[in-house]
Amino acid sequence: MAAGRDTGDVEEVEAGLRSDTARVIGFSDAVFAIVITLLVLDLSVPEVTPGGMPHALLEQWPVYLAFGTSFLYVAVNWLNHKGTFLRVRCADRGLDWANLGVLFGVTLLPFVTALVSRAVEKGDVSDERIAIGAYALLGVLLSATWMWLYHYLHRRPELRQAGVPRRFFAAERLRALFGVAAYAIAGLVGWWVSVPVALVVFLLLPLFYGLSSNGSYEIRRRIRRRG
Amino acid sequence: MAAGRDTGDVEEVEAGLRSDTARVIGFSDAVFAIVITLLVLDLSVPEVTPGGMPHALLEQWPVYLAFGTSFLYVAVNWLNHKGTFLRVRCADRGLDWANLGVLFGVTLLPFVTALVSRAVEKGDVSDERIAIGAYALLGVLLSATWMWLYHYLHRRPELRQAGVPRRFFAAERLRALFGVAAYAIAGLVGWWVSVPVALVVFLLLPLFYGLSSNGSYEIRRRIRRRG
Amino acid sequence: MAAGRDTGDVEEVEAGLRSDTARVIGFSDAVFAIVITLLVLDLSVPEVTPGGMPHALLEQWPVYLAFGTSFLYVAVNWLNHKGTFLRVRCADRGLDWANLGVLFGVTLLPFVTALVSRAVEKGDVSDERIAIGAYALLGVLLSATWMWLYHYLHRRPELRQAGVPRRFFAAERLRALFGVAAYAIAGLVGWWVSVPVALVVFLLLPLFYGLSSNGSYEIRRRIRRRG
Amino acid sequence: MAAGRDTGDVEEVEAGLRSDTARVIGFSDAVFAIVITLLVLDLSVPEVTPGGMPHALLEQWPVYLAFGTSFLYVAVNWLNHKGTFLRVRCADRGLDWANLGVLFGVTLLPFVTALVSRAVEKGDVSDERIAIGAYALLGVLLSATWMWLYHYLHRRPELRQAGVPRRFFAAERLRALFGVAAYAIAGLVGWWVSVPVALVVFLLLPLFYGLSSNGSYEIRRRIRRRG
Repeated sequence: MAAGRDTGDVEEVEAGLRSDTARVIGFSDAVFAIVITLLVLDLSVPEVTPGGMPHALLEQWPVYLAFGTSFLYVAVNWLNHKGTFLRVRCADRGLDWANLGVLFGVTLLPFVTALVSRAVEKGDVSDERIAIGAYALLGVLLSATWMWLYHYLHRRPELRQAGVPRRFFAAERLRALFGVAAYAIAGLVGWWVSVPVALVVFLLLPLFYGLSSNGSYEIRRRIRRRG
Repeated sequence: MAAGRDTGDVEEVEAGLRSDTARVIGFSDAVFAIVITLLVLDLSVPEVTPGGMPHALLEQWPVYLAFGTSFLYVAVNWLNHKGTFLRVRCADRGLDWANLGVLFGVTLLPFVTALVSRAVEKGDVSDERIAIGAYALLGVLLSATWMWLYHYLHRRPELRQAGVPRRFFAAERLRALFGVAAYAIAGLVGWWVSVPVALVVFLLLPLFYGLSSNGSYEIRRRIRRRG
Repeated sequence: MAAGRDTGDVEEVEAGLRSDTARVIGFSDAVFAIVITLLVLDLSVPEVTPGGMPHALLEQWPVYLAFGTSFLYVAVNWLNHKGTFLRVRCADRGLDWANLGVLFGVTLLPFVTALVSRAVEKGDVSDERIAIGAYALLGVLLSATWMWLYHYLHRRPELRQAGVPRRFFAAERLRALFGVAAYAIAGLVGWWVSVPVALVVFLLLPLFYGLSSNGSYEIRRRIRRRG
Repeated sequence: MAAGRDTGDVEEVEAGLRSDTARVIGFSDAVFAIVITLLVLDLSVPEVTPGGMPHALLEQWPVYLAFGTSFLYVAVNWLNHKGTFLRVRCADRGLDWANLGVLFGVTLLPFVTALVSRAVEKGDVSDERIAIGAYALLGVLLSATWMWLYHYLHRRPELRQAGVPRRFFAAERLRALFGVAAYAIAGLVGWWVSVPVALVVFLLLPLFYGLSSNGSYEIRRRIRRRG
C-alpha cells in the first residue's frame, strides 16, 4: 500500500472521501433494472394488415433471440455486480468512477443488441458484419470496465470486507481479461469468417459468466465439496 | 436436506454465497416499478385531424382495458413478491436465478398485452387468436417461474424466516401450478372456442391471485377468525 | 377498533400480514421517479427542414407548459407521499392496495398531460374539451385514491407512528376531498364555459397541494409560530 | 440562526417536518438512473436500405458524442449529489424542494442533448445556434438549482452532519455560481461567435465538475497531502 492512502479511516469518512456502499448499490440496481426492462421496447407489435400478424410475429425471431440474450447478459452483469459488492466494505471516488464505467457499458447494451437483431432480420451481410463488430466492441469495453473495477479493488484492500481472500479480485480480474479477449476474437471471427459462429459465441459468453458469477473461488469450492 | 448444503452458515455468508435479501428486493422493486409504468407508453395520443379526438379516443377502448388489466397483473405480482420475500431470510445464487426468471416473465407483460389490445382493436380473428395464444403462453411461463421460486424455497428451509410454517411454500407452489393450468386452458379456449371467454379469464386470474397474494395460509386464517 | 383487528401485533407480523414500510416506499419512489422522468419523452425534437427549428420549438409552447405542470404535479404527489409515510409505522395488505391505487393515478398523468398539450397545440375546441375532461377525470380519480389512503390510515391507528395526532389523517382526507371537488368543477368549467380557465385551475391546484403537502397540521403550526 | 428555527429537533421530527435523508436519496438515485439510461433511446438504429448501415452509423457521430457527454454530465451530477448528501443529516421540506429543482434540470438533459446532436447532424447554423442556446440555458438553470441547494444547506447548519466544515457549502455554492457564469458565457459564444467553441466548453465543464465533485475541500486536501 502506498503511504498516506490507507491511514486515517475515520478521518476519510468524515471528510466524505469514503462512504458505505448503499448508495452506489441503489443507483446501480436502478440502472440494471431499467436496462433489463427497456429491452422489451424493442419487441414492437408489427403493423400489419388484418390477418398478417402470425407471419409478422414469426419473422421477428431474431428480435426475440436478441431479447433473451440481452436479458441474460444484463442479469449476469447484475449477478456479477452483486457478487462483487458483497465483498466491498466502503466506496471511494475511484470506485464510483469504475462502477460508472461498468454502467456506461451496460447502458449501451440495448443499442448494440438492436443493431444485431435488425441486421439479422434484414439479412444483408455487410450490415450484419458492422452490427457484429459493434456488439463485440461493446463486449470488449464492458469486460475492460469490469477489469478496471476488479483491479481497483485488488489494489485497495482497505475497501474490501474482512475475510475476502487476498487473491479474490486478482482472479476476477483475470476472468474479465478473458472476456476482453473472447469478445475481441468473436468480433474478428464475425467480421472475417462467419457471422453465425460469432452469434453463438455471444450467446455462450453470458452463460459462462453466469455460471462463474460468484467468482472462480466458488466454483473451485463447489468442485472440492462434491469431490 | 442434502449433506453439505445446510452446514456452515457463517462460512457461506463470508464466502459470498449467501446474502441478505435487500439487494434482490431493491432490484426487483425497480423492475416491477418500471414495467408498471412503461405500460402507459402504449396509451398513445391518437394522431387525428382537428376535432377527431373524441372518436379516436373512444375507439382505443381495448388499449385502456389492457392497461388496467396489466397494471393489476403487475401489481398482483408485486404483492406476491412482497408476501414471498417477507418470509425469506437470506438469498443464495439459486434464489437469485429463480427470481430473475420471474422478472423475465414480468418484463414481457407489456409486449403481450400490446399484442392483445392491438388485435382486439383491429378485430381480425386470426390475429386475435395468435395474440391470445401469446398472452396465455406468457401466463404459463410466469406461473411456472413462480413455481420454480416456491419450489426452491420449499427445498431450502435455511433460507426461510424463522416461524414460517413448514408447508407454506408447498401450498404456494400449488397455487402457482393452478396458474400454469388456468392460463394453458384459457389459451386453448381462446384458440379453439371463443376469444372473449379467454379475455375474461385473463381478467379474472389476477383478481384471484390478488385476493390470495399473501398465501392461502392467510385466507384460511381470516376465515377461521371470522368463524 | 373492531374486535379481532388490533390484537396480536407480533403474531400478525410473523404471519406476514404486516410489514415495515421500507418496501412499499421503495417501490413507490421508483414509480414516482419513472413517471417524473418519462414526461420528458414528450418533449420531442421537431423534425423540420434545416433552419426551421427556432420556429418549431416556439410553437411547442403548450408541451413545455404541460411538462412543467406535470413535473410539479408528480413532485407534489411525491411530497404528499413522503409526508404521509413518515407517519406510518407498518403496512398491511389494505394499505398496499390503497397505495397501488394512488400509483395507478400517478402512472396515468403523462398520458392525460400529453392529451391536453397536443389538443392546445392543435387548437381545435372540441379536442380541447375532451382533453380537459380526461385531465379533470384523472384529477378526480387521483384525489379519490388519496382519500382512500387517508381514510384507511384514519381507521387503522395501529398502522400509525406513535405521536401522530389522532385527527391528522381525518384532516388529510378532507384535503383530498377538496381535490375531488376542485378537479370535478374545473372539468365542468372547461367543458361548458372556458378552456383557459380550467387550465389555470389545473396549474394552481398542484401549487396548493405543494404548499400544504405536509398536512394542514404543519400550516397551522407555522402560522402559530410566526404569530 | 433565526430564532424559532433551530429549536425543538425532536419535536420537529415528530411533527414530520424533518426526516432522515433515505427517501430523498432513494428517489433522486432512481431519477438519475432513469435519465442516464434514457439517453440510449436516442441512439436509434438507422432505417436504411440493406447494406447502408455502415455509412448511416458513421453519419450519426454527433449522436454518439452527445450520448457520451450527457452520460458524463449526469454521472457528475450524481457524484455531486452523493458528495452533498453524505454531509446532510436530515431533510426538511425546503431541502426537498431544492432537490426537486436539481432533478428538474437533470430530467431536461436528454431533451436539450437531443436538440444539439440533431442540429449538428443536420448542419444548419441557425438550428445549431438555437440548440446551443437551449443547452446553455439548461446548464445555467441546473447550476442555479445547485446554488439554491448549497445555499440552503449553508443557511441550515442543523441539517448538516457533524464534522462538516462550516465553510464547506459556501465553497460549493461558489463552485455552482461558476457554472452559471460558464454556461451563460458558452451560450453567448455559441450564439455570437462560434458553435464548435461552445460545444468544447460543454464537454469540458462536466470534466471540471467531475474532478471537483467531492468539494474543493477534497482537492485542497489532496494537494496538501502530496506536497
